Amino acid sequence: MTGLPDLPAGGAGFVDHIGIAVADMDQALALYRDLMGLELERLEEVSSENVRVAMLKLDRTGAVGHVELLAPMTDDCNIAKFIAKKGPGLHHIAFAATDTETVMQRCRDAGLRLLDESPRTGAGGKQIAFLHPKDTGGVLMEICADPV
Amino acid sequence: MTGLPDLPAGGAGFVDHIGIAVADMDQALALYRDLMGLELERLEEVSSENVRVAMLKLDRTGAVGHVELLAPMTDDCNIAKFIAKKGPGLHHIAFAATDTETVMQRCRDAGLRLLDESPRTGAGGKQIAFLHPKDTGGVLMEICADPV
Repeated sequence: MTGLPDLPAGGAGFVDHIGIAVADMDQALALYRDLMGLELERLEEVSSENVRVAMLKLDRTGAVGHVELLAPMTDDCNIAKFIAKKGPGLHHIAFAATDTETVMQRCRDAGLRLLDESPRTGAGGKQIAFLHPKDTGGVLMEICADPV
Repeated sequence: MTGLPDLPAGGAGFVDHIGIAVADMDQALALYRDLMGLELERLEEVSSENVRVAMLKLDRTGAVGHVELLAPMTDDCNIAKFIAKKGPGLHHIAFAATDTETVMQRCRDAGLRLLDESPRTGAGGKQIAFLHPKDTGGVLMEICADPV
């Protein structure tokens, strides 16, 4: 007994990957690998699609990430505004930190703007801060650390 | 020696979560939990943000997912068209399958349209198929299984 519901037939029960469209692969690797610390597994060219692909591990530590679904509770909350403007869909990607402020400072030093001046408390009591998506290839990025 | 580069200071080296804006939480859980087989860890209301949050595990099996960066190699490939239309950014989320066709059929039975009639070969030789984002809350979803 694991307490888990049965897997639907044919399903494997996990997210295989998240795809991110990037205009420049070298700039993207500087961000995802060098600044955010994900491990690059391989580079590949998929010539049938005319696309260069970099596969970075979601997790190199054995920790478990999450898909976070965010539904608005009022018409004027941030998620409601996002849906009104862009429709529902992919919203952000959160990178785990051991210390949010340290990562924020490294991002500032790399010339990235932050939407938060200092870490604030988010879902699950985590210490979070967001980066400006204009400086991260159109992706809203969150830095998040467990409560101290 | 692990062959891994050092983690950047303060970073934890993994994706904590991906945030997805949904208009209706019950419909979203029917899709992500019941149809795609992710394990629901908890439901939470973050009243400071006026948002309901569902946290589903990226992985309940110990398998390792990936962040996939996709850079166009020509001006007329799908990723180039996506970037021209919407700008760079989050593109799709891929759910692991043990059998792609079985999951495709379950999605058809649930009334979801598919962009692929049958599985085709994608990056890494995986057997892949895409769902129509209009039927999946604005999220381009991929079903993907290891090569047989």
